[in-house]
Amino acid sequence: MTSVQRYLSDHRDRFRDELFEFLRMPSVSARSEHAPDVLACAQWLRGNMQSAGLSTTLFDTPGHPIVLGEWREAPAGAPTILVYGHYDVQPAEPLELWESPPFEPAVRDGRIYARGSVDDKGQILLHVKAIEAHLAVHGRLPCNVIVLVEGEEEVGSDNLAAFVESQAARLACDGVVISDSAMFAPGQPSILSSLRGLAYLQIDLEGPTTDLHSGSYGGAVVNPAMALARILATFHDANGRVAIPGFYDAVQEWEPNVRAQIRGLPFDEEHFRAETGAAALGGEEGWSTLERIWCRPTCEVNGLLSGYTGEGAKTVLPSKAMAKVSCRLVPDQVPAAIANLFRAHLARVAPPGVRVTVTELHGGNPWRASLDGALYDAGRRALERAFGRSPVIVGEGGSIPVVHDFARVLGAPVLLMGFGLPGENAHAPNEWISVENYEKGALAAAWLWDELVR
Amino acid sequence: MTSVQRYLSDHRDRFRDELFEFLRMPSVSARSEHAPDVLACAQWLRGNMQSAGLSTTLFDTPGHPIVLGEWREAPAGAPTILVYGHYDVQPAEPLELWESPPFEPAVRDGRIYARGSVDDKGQILLHVKAIEAHLAVHGRLPCNVIVLVEGEEEVGSDNLAAFVESQAARLACDGVVISDSAMFAPGQPSILSSLRGLAYLQIDLEGPTTDLHSGSYGGAVVNPAMALARILATFHDANGRVAIPGFYDAVQEWEPNVRAQIRGLPFDEEHFRAETGAAALGGEEGWSTLERIWCRPTCEVNGLLSGYTGEGAKTVLPSKAMAKVSCRLVPDQVPAAIANLFRAHLARVAPPGVRVTVTELHGGNPWRASLDGALYDAGRRALERAFGRSPVIVGEGGSIPVVHDFARVLGAPVLLMGFGLPGENAHAPNEWISVENYEKGALAAAWLWDELVR
Repeated sequence: MTSVQRYLSDHRDRFRDELFEFLRMPSVSARSEHAPDVLACAQWLRGNMQSAGLSTTLFDTPGHPIVLGEWREAPAGAPTILVYGHYDVQPAEPLELWESPPFEPAVRDGRIYARGSVDDKGQILLHVKAIEAHLAVHGRLPCNVIVLVEGEEEVGSDNLAAFVESQAARLACDGVVISDSAMFAPGQPSILSSLRGLAYLQIDLEGPTTDLHSGSYGGAVVNPAMALARILATFHDANGRVAIPGFYDAVQEWEPNVRAQIRGLPFDEEHFRAETGAAALGGEEGWSTLERIWCRPTCEVNGLLSGYTGEGAKTVLPSKAMAKVSCRLVPDQVPAAIANLFRAHLARVAPPGVRVTVTELHGGNPWRASLDGALYDAGRRALERAFGRSPVIVGEGGSIPVVHDFARVLGAPVLLMGFGLPGENAHAPNEWISVENYEKGALAAAWLWDELVR
Repeated sequence: MTSVQRYLSDHRDRFRDELFEFLRMPSVSARSEHAPDVLACAQWLRGNMQSAGLSTTLFDTPGHPIVLGEWREAPAGAPTILVYGHYDVQPAEPLELWESPPFEPAVRDGRIYARGSVDDKGQILLHVKAIEAHLAVHGRLPCNVIVLVEGEEEVGSDNLAAFVESQAARLACDGVVISDSAMFAPGQPSILSSLRGLAYLQIDLEGPTTDLHSGSYGGAVVNPAMALARILATFHDANGRVAIPGFYDAVQEWEPNVRAQIRGLPFDEEHFRAETGAAALGGEEGWSTLERIWCRPTCEVNGLLSGYTGEGAKTVLPSKAMAKVSCRLVPDQVPAAIANLFRAHLARVAPPGVRVTVTELHGGNPWRASLDGALYDAGRRALERAFGRSPVIVGEGGSIPVVHDFARVLGAPVLLMGFGLPGENAHAPNEWISVENYEKGALAAAWLWDELVR
């Protein structure tokens, strides 16, 4: 047992108590009545980081403050690593579904239950504790360290990109470490190596100026709702592939060993299906369920609205029809380019008699880690030492826009090593973090510093 | 000039004044605060019919009363004819769009403007005045007459079918005459000889139990909104024909001379398109616009709803998707049989991964007059004598359920001879009836009795 390891072990009760203090603060960024709690939480965290040995600064933003901690006394030539996390949490509602109060941490069955336990207070505090251990035991860290913790992740990180851009010189680094995701399974450390991007469009069709009587006009006027259905039906082929011409042109191939590793993961397809409640799964032919979610771009209808949608029968021929359609993207698809492909396709397939408008509502770039480099290798070794098992590569079907922002503005690789677990209820009642993962996560975080300069 | 014709001419001012009295009564059946006005209107009409020489009865219903007038002193063997109309009117709102108050009749440019003027007070009163003229001049009518005027047509005639069924013996007749529709053009008398029926379905698709995150699940779970679009897209072929197997099996052919006559009507397609505001018209290939509306069955989407339909972007993979779909039917299509064809088709085309439910919301039978027989011939001749021009055959794309009820329960042919005109604003502000049509309509109604026994 190393001295850092012993320090973490000796102080485990205090570290848990500190997490409990952190979790008791209802730092709900979405609710203005919690603004004082969010500020108090930022100040508490700053104090905790200061006690750990970091120099701290609180940055005001137009929203909630950013807490910055720095330790820059590493030997010349040592790398600088930025650790990112967030101290704000999701609203706790519906409160009646919590088995213990959301802001009163409770331990049951090896889990710490509380709002924010895994998302992301536990996961950012374990990094602070690892830094404290190094500084307490050795009086120094092997690298320069920046800890950046924002208070607006749960409301869209609206002020983070501007902060990173304006402070780009101060935040310059050789790598970014984020722990805000989950491991594939208990005891199985995981590196999240890909995120999908997003191109979110709204498609509006207008036919007649007003809703018409379906008896007096039906059969002779192009029905925008039917036209929309026929247009949407052209978006995929019979094999579940997106049929928009050019859609796959920019898609990078996946390395065969990564695909093989993903296909080798012990994934229970039937359990996944049963959890969704769907009668059957489906998707693009030739890809497994995990690949469909992690590796492949999609085109989904998120919403449909046209004509009469209330109770009973109303015989209107609708004037308008609307679809919200979004594509999850993979490298190197570009949201604006995808939107243009849709515009061109719609111009080709829309029937005369309807006017089509396409509005880009949201876009986000996909991201994929390169599976080599010093940071990646150090993370892999640190996780293996802490958990006694090599990490697996996992993907994420959703988007975490800040990852792309860090990569773009700071030009640094990003390592996503998360310590959550499936079923952790992030964003839901009874959120929890495993006690074991909180402690082994701190160990992995501590070893990361050693592995970076090995 | 016959004596009946002279009577109508001599009393034209009084007949117009009586219509004005009738129109001043706000008999809005849809508004409970107008219930006393509806009752007063029924009583006024009963009095007017009694003065005309009919024996009258007021029948209470669970809603508004039915006014019945009878004259049954025709010689043995003479036919019995039932005249149907309604004394209730649509709400007048929006009031600010009326150029003169809706319940204060005003004559401008040869039109009587008031709510209910054409729909249907003017058109039922002209029949009463024609009966009055016969009885005043001759002391008798050549046929037995029943005049049935309901007060709930604008709210669905909920109590009429039960009334007709319970009073079937008393209402037994050799023909039904209804004036509640429009002529094809000014000066062009018209017989409405077909009505489309309706099969109105709601199609509900359910995939996952709840809305899912489109990042975490998108691409691997069948999307009910996309599945719905793909299903709806199978409802028509590329030529605009309904592609549900069996859909056209029961469709009667149209007589070539009826089609030729419809195609010969002076119909301005571009004017029709411009009025709808649609960029182009469309529909089943091989049929003109009027034929598409009058002669052909349709399948229209009346409403679509799925997932997120508010402002901006929300990345849900919807749990459910709903479409309201209705078919206008032509003889001899049967609503329940059409619903079953859809059920069978949906079972074939719905993908695994969604559960499909079909609910029948509304059904109505199509109707088509036989273009011969004593009643039809008498109507044709009466219109020709009154307007100096042969009537044309017109169709109606919508449904008038009472027509089918009369035909079904009483087993009698129905003659639809309407005296409205295009642009008459029935159901809209500034409703009007042409003074000329009110007077020539009464003349045609009067001659109908003579022509029936010629």
